[in-house]
Order: sequence, then structure tokens, then C-alpha cells
Amino acid sequence: MKPTNLFFKKRKKIYFYDLLKILKIKYKKKYKNFLLNDIQNLDTAKNNDISFFHSSKYKDSLKATKSNFIITTLELSNHLPKSKIVLIVKNVLISVAKITEYFYPNSLNDQFEPINMSINKIKKYKKVNFGSNVIIGENVKIGANSTIGHNSIIESNVVIGKNCNIGSNVIIKKSIIGNDVSILDGAKIGKKGFGFFPNKSKNIRYPHIGMVIIGNNVEIGCNNTIDRGSLSNTIIGNNSFLDNQVHIAHNVKIGINCIIAGQVGIAGSSTIGDNVMIGGQAGISGHLTIGNNVKIGGGSGVIKNIPNNTKVMGYPAKDIKKFLKENI
Amino acid sequence: MKPTNLFFKKRKKIYFYDLLKILKIKYKKKYKNFLLNDIQNLDTAKNNDISFFHSSKYKDSLKATKSNFIITTLELSNHLPKSKIVLIVKNVLISVAKITEYFYPNSLNDQFEPINMSINKIKKYKKVNFGSNVIIGENVKIGANSTIGHNSIIESNVVIGKNCNIGSNVIIKKSIIGNDVSILDGAKIGKKGFGFFPNKSKNIRYPHIGMVIIGNNVEIGCNNTIDRGSLSNTIIGNNSFLDNQVHIAHNVKIGINCIIAGQVGIAGSSTIGDNVMIGGQAGISGHLTIGNNVKIGGGSGVIKNIPNNTKVMGYPAKDIKKFLKENI
Amino acid sequence: MKPTNLFFKKRKKIYFYDLLKILKIKYKKKYKNFLLNDIQNLDTAKNNDISFFHSSKYKDSLKATKSNFIITTLELSNHLPKSKIVLIVKNVLISVAKITEYFYPNSLNDQFEPINMSINKIKKYKKVNFGSNVIIGENVKIGANSTIGHNSIIESNVVIGKNCNIGSNVIIKKSIIGNDVSILDGAKIGKKGFGFFPNKSKNIRYPHIGMVIIGNNVEIGCNNTIDRGSLSNTIIGNNSFLDNQVHIAHNVKIGINCIIAGQVGIAGSSTIGDNVMIGGQAGISGHLTIGNNVKIGGGSGVIKNIPNNTKVMGYPAKDIKKFLKENI
Repeated sequence: MKPTNLFFKKRKKIYFYDLLKILKIKYKKKYKNFLLNDIQNLDTAKNNDISFFHSSKYKDSLKATKSNFIITTLELSNHLPKSKIVLIVKNVLISVAKITEYFYPNSLNDQFEPINMSINKIKKYKKVNFGSNVIIGENVKIGANSTIGHNSIIESNVVIGKNCNIGSNVIIKKSIIGNDVSILDGAKIGKKGFGFFPNKSKNIRYPHIGMVIIGNNVEIGCNNTIDRGSLSNTIIGNNSFLDNQVHIAHNVKIGINCIIAGQVGIAGSSTIGDNVMIGGQAGISGHLTIGNNVKIGGGSGVIKNIPNNTKVMGYPAKDIKKFLKENI
Repeated sequence: MKPTNLFFKKRKKIYFYDLLKILKIKYKKKYKNFLLNDIQNLDTAKNNDISFFHSSKYKDSLKATKSNFIITTLELSNHLPKSKIVLIVKNVLISVAKITEYFYPNSLNDQFEPINMSINKIKKYKKVNFGSNVIIGENVKIGANSTIGHNSIIESNVVIGKNCNIGSNVIIKKSIIGNDVSILDGAKIGKKGFGFFPNKSKNIRYPHIGMVIIGNNVEIGCNNTIDRGSLSNTIIGNNSFLDNQVHIAHNVKIGINCIIAGQVGIAGSSTIGDNVMIGGQAGISGHLTIGNNVKIGGGSGVIKNIPNNTKVMGYPAKDIKKFLKENI
Repeated sequence: MKPTNLFFKKRKKIYFYDLLKILKIKYKKKYKNFLLNDIQNLDTAKNNDISFFHSSKYKDSLKATKSNFIITTLELSNHLPKSKIVLIVKNVLISVAKITEYFYPNSLNDQFEPINMSINKIKKYKKVNFGSNVIIGENVKIGANSTIGHNSIIESNVVIGKNCNIGSNVIIKKSIIGNDVSILDGAKIGKKGFGFFPNKSKNIRYPHIGMVIIGNNVEIGCNNTIDRGSLSNTIIGNNSFLDNQVHIAHNVKIGINCIIAGQVGIAGSSTIGDNVMIGGQAGISGHLTIGNNVKIGGGSGVIKNIPNNTKVMGYPAKDIKKFLKENI
């Protein structure tokens, strides 16, 4: 699920003590020389990773987590088993943001990558067909028989498979892309998500250290925007096709064989199953789960989970037969 | 209605026998040396074109067609008069896709066009004002007093009329554009439509050999996406204005004097009459007919045909007075 | 509210007599040698500016205006006090368009700006980090520590503050941008609004001499389109964040600390208060006033004013509790 982070350089040797300093916590010093490996979600953390618990919604993940170091609030701390080392903070997510930035010091920088183009750099991709004015970062991998259109920008460490057609004016960063993928003109893949802590006078941005993972035989339409994940990744499964002007927010997971029509928007952290069809201009709220084989009518606004094998339509979306009966 | 295909090179000398081989049909050999001209819709086919009948919805077109060679299914074949030469297949549209690709061998390639820019190529357009880094393909025609903004790409054989303002970062392919047209920054015109045969593990794409035809005095807003037709064309009539972020799918026909506000989406093969006004973010489903002088309120979702001189609003769209009475 | 117009050059010495000629008015000659300064809205006009009154909706502005020269119709002219010099016309807005074009002779030209790039031009911005193929117009101001991504175009006279991150493939014209602003890849800022007089056979465009003013610490998402004002300005207040694919039409004013999610559209001349949150894909009709601290649910269609401190959802948008009760 979570490949090594190709895109953000992790600080070496982070001790538990460093995190206590950042969070201004004065107890728990007995673990101070413990060496931590990473910051991760409960689901993906290993035993030497630090993790966090910010809502009782994630009780099941808490039970199953391998992490021994959990950031949480006083109120939520009674959910934690005694075996865990608990760090009590006022605001879990702001604390996580601070620690993430400490692990990944350049993760808040979302400036363009200042790449010095050179013909030589492009010449090394012998079986790739480049347009004019293409910009390729360091350590980019591009498979045989792929094409990169005019004026496109592929930032450092991006991986693109074989037989891919990347259009013109495309920007790809922090992404791993499979084989036989088309990314059409003007798409923007891998920008940081629209996630921040609202704060009067100056919102607080947090690091997005996830990436975009695109499977094989995927099509991404013109002018799509697909944001990378915050801690987890944004994923688009094999053989899923997206039409023009689709917006996929951070941490969204889309299954295999999905068909997503023009101008659809999927808000942050929602999960879409396999074989899902979504009609034009439909919108899906954040943090929802859409089952397998679901059909969502054009223009729908989905604001709750949808079970497998269901057809829905409407705003808010409901059973499609009910919607049509009530409205026609 | 259908000018000669400027954009896709047709194979020379296609015999009926070739098509029998592609479709794996062993009967009908007595016409095997018949020379076919093209593959066309029932409405546009001439007597030496092959055509197809895939739904009883098109019975009237079938009656009127000039084509003598019709691909259809066993079930639908009883609609056909005895005078026609009938080719029975299991899946009409997949068969049409195969034959279209045979007629137009490069029609499935939707890669960027690898154009070698040269100053000389641009110098030949004496009365055209070009920005920097413009890419112009072969045989592009651009009328006097037109402008082409920075970083824009005009692929081969595109025709642009007089006094046109093409913005910056615009991509135009497979399109014929009239006089006094504005195409604003970031618009993508002429990409293949979002049409394919869904198929687990690997969707089957089909050729889009239509084009985009834009009349005179049209305005196309920033970041619009206007897809070309599959067999027929996508058409935007004279003096129609489209605001920013509008999406027009393949085969859509828009009449004259239409006003289409921001973020509207029109799904494939719908026809919009003359003098139609469409409010912001409205969506129109595929294969619909919207009459002349129709007004569609902002945010509407149109899922059935709309007669002439009607005002509608709502999702699904209904008479606007009824909608407002019920909802305010 | 209205800084000097940096972007459109005003004709020098415009006499009242010149305007009489343009509007084909033969009376009122006694003021003919009066020198006029500008054309302005009632609210912003000073006593030597000409203004206009085209709907009784603006009665209060008429009472308060400092302008002594008012264009209006015969029907509306009885609202005007005797102290004003009244110019009676058939169509107020078409007359205003003609006069605006006379004041600002190049204001109808919306072609790309033909800038001859030169390395020297960029070298003068010592503390700015530029990508490759950046195009910078004349007299552009860019503050220290700002970055301008690859292929971006900044047209003449644009002002960009300190510590700004302008992405790649961005186009900015007729805009003044504060400090600490991010404008993400593919955004188009400052295009003329979608305003014109519909007219069979050839719509009549009118000048948009306003600009876009963006405050400090603002974020503008990928592929956003933000149009400049017609006579007034389009304004985005401090610390407001816009997600991807948002469309902001001409003359819209957005307050401070607003959060606007993906694919939202705001139609022309609407005003959004402070601390407003707008969910994904919501649309707001033109000429509305949305109060402070308003929350608008995703997918909503707002067609009337919303008072302060209100939560709304639905299409048309209503009290959110009512909407959810009726629909779930």
C-alpha cells in the first residue's frame, strides 16, 4: 500500500525526545532516546512509527495499530490501551502537522521545481518521444514507447510506465504512474491537497507528503486536477477512465474499472469501489465510502456512504428509482 | 454538413471483402469486389458508403439512408428492407469501431503531434501575430489579422479564419474555426471524445474521426474543453458565446446565438437549438434535443428533451415557474 | 477601493461635447467645454466623472453619488434631482460601453500581449526565482522572495507582492496581488469578464476596465479562472483560500478568511462576506449578497441573498436543517 517515499526526503535519526520538544511535552522522558522511523496513519504505522488518534471514529484502527507512540487528546486518551506510549496534546492534527514537517523538512514547500532543462537530460530517454519545451526533473523514470507532449513538466522522481501518452501542457509531480496510461492535455497531477488549518489572519498549511498512484491502462482527461495525499496516497485503480475537468481531492482512492464523466468532483479522503460509474457533474463529499458496482447519476450530490451494487441519483443522492419516481 | 476529412488519412481502395474479413463474416461474398468509399452514419452515408443500425431509435434514419451496406444485429435485421446488403454481427458498435480503424489507420493514435517548430514555418503567415513558443503543425491555415498567443499549439491541418484571437496556452487539433472567433487562454479544442467500450481489465477505445467545427464570431472561454466528434462532428454555431470552464462532449451540436455560462457541461451527442441561454453549472445529459429559444436556469440538470421556447430550471429540470413555486 | 487604473490608458482631455457626439445628443450643449475625468459607477464617481443610472434598484446610490453627469433613460430620468446634468439615451449600458471605450481606447482589445522576452528583463528581478520560458511584460513589479513557475505569463503592469508562489502555466493580467499569495498551476487571472450585449448575428462586447485585486496570504487553486471587473474590480480578501477549478466571474467581491472548495462558481457582481465557507461544486448566482460567517453546503445553488451567520444547503439553497430534514 505505501511504497517508500520517493518524493520527500526524511530527516535522519529522529529521537522521541525531538518530538517532545516540538510538542512542548515535558513528561514521557524515559523513552527519549528511542529512535523513531516515520509518522504514519494508524493503519499503516509499524511499531517504531509514531501515529495519532484524533477521533473516536478510528477506534478500530487504534485497536489494530502496530504503532507504540500515539498522539491524542486528554478526552480521547481513555480509548488507548496501557501498552501504548501516549502523547497528550490540545490539537492532534496541528501537532501531527508540526511533526510531519520535522520528519520531512521540505514538505511544506510547494513552489515550482526550478529545473535547468538540458537537451542531454532528455537524450538519455532513448525510447521516449518528447515534444518541444518539455521539462524533466532529476531521477524521473519513463518507460519505453511513452510520449511526453509539448510544454509538459515532469518533476523529480516521478515514475511513468511503458506505453504512456502524456499530453501537452501537463504537470506531474509526486506521482507514480503505471503502464498504458493516457494523461490528456492540461491535467495537473500531484499538487498538494486543499488541506490546512483555518486561522483568522493566516491559515496554517500542513505538509502533504503523500503521492498520487495511478494504475495501468488509466485515462485522465483534459484539465483534470488530481491532488496528492496528505499522509496516505491518492490512488486511481487499473483501467479507470476519467473524462475532462474532473477534480480528485487528496487521499481519494478510486478502484478498478471505474468510469467517471466530465466535471465530477470527489472531495478529500473518500473511497470509491471497483466498477463504479459516475455521471457528469456529480459530486461526492469527503470521507465517504462508495461500494463496488455503484452507479451514480449525473448531477448527483452524494453525502453519505453508498453500499455495493446500488444505483443512486439526486441531491442528496438516493435510490435512483425513488428519485425518478418523485421527480418526473 | 460533413466536409472532407482533413485530419485523418483514409486508406485507399477498400473492398467489401476486406470488411468481411475484419468482421469474420463468411457469407455475402458475392459483393466482395465492391469498392467502398467511407464509413458513415445513416444520415450522412452515400450509396457506396457502409453504415450501421444499432438501435430501433434510428428507424427513420434507416428508411432514409442512401447506404446500401448496413451493419446490424440479427434482432434488428428485420427492420431492414431487402434492397440493402446486411452484415449481421454480435456487437454493432464494436464492429463499427474496427471498420473505422481500418478505413482510418491512424485514427486511434491520440498522442501529441511531434512537430519540429521552425521560425520559417511561422514566417509564412505574414498577417498573423504570434506569441513566443507557438507550435504550428503542417498545412495549418490562419486568416489575416488573427493572433495566436504564447505557448499555444495548433496541430496539422487546422483551419482558423480571419480576425481570430487565439489566447495563450491554447491547444487546437482536428478543428475548423470561422472568422472573428476568440478562443481564450487554456482552452483545449478537438481532443477525442470520452467514448470507449467498457471492458474489465482493459477498456476498448474506438476511433474518433470527427472534428470540431466552430462558426463565426464565437467566443470560447478559458480552460474550456471541446471534444471532437466520433463519426459526426462537434459543432458550435455562429455568434454563440461560452464562458470559462465549459465542457462540450463529442458530437454535440450547438446552434447560433447561444449564451452558455461558466462551468456548464453538455454530454455527448446532444443538440442545442438557436438562441439558447444556459445558466452557470447547468448540465445536459447525452443524446438530448434542446429546442430553439430555450432558457435553462443555472445549476439545472436536464435529463429529457426540451421543446422550443421553453424556460426550465431544476434537477431534474422542469418548467421554471413550477420549479420556483415548489421551492421558494 | 479603486486605485488608479494601471492597466488601461485613459485618453487625455475628454470634453462633455465629445460624449454628446458619441451618444448623438444635440441638447445640453451649454456644458460642452466641461472637462470630464473618468467614467465611474455611481458609488465611486467624483463630481467631474460621468456616471449612469440604468435601474431603479440603484436609487440609493443615485441619491448619494457625487457625479454631476448621469446617463439614463427617459423613464428613469424622473428619479434624478434637478441639480444633475442628465443625458437621455435609449440603452444606458450600450451608451456606457461606447463612452468607456472612448475614455479607454484600447480597452476592447483582449488579444494576448505580444511581449518580446529577454533574459535581461528577467535579470532585473534579483530576488525572484523564475522557471524556464517565463514571459514578463513591461513594468511588472514582483516582490522579494517570490517565485514564478515555468511557462507562466505575467502581463504588463501587474503587481505581485513578496513571498508569493506563482505556479507553472499560470497567466496573470490586469491584477494587483498582495504578499504571501500562492497561485497554483494553470490558473488564469484577470481575463475580461463574460459580459456583452447579446445581439443576433453579432454580440456587442463591452470594455472591461476593472482589474483583479488579491489580498495577502491568499491561495488560488489549480486551473481557477478569475475574471477582472467591468467598471469596478474583482476582489479576493486577505487569507481567503480557493481550491482547484473554481470560477470567479467579473466584479465579484470575496471577503477575508473565506474557504471555497473545488469547482465552486460565483457569477458576476456577487459579494461574499468574511469568514464564509462554500462547499464543493456550489454555485452562486449573480448580483447577490452573501453575509459574513455564512456556510454554504456542497452542491448548493444559491439564488437569493443570504444573511449573516446562516448555514444553507440545497438547490435552491435554504436553511441547512430544513434541507436535511426534508431530504434524508
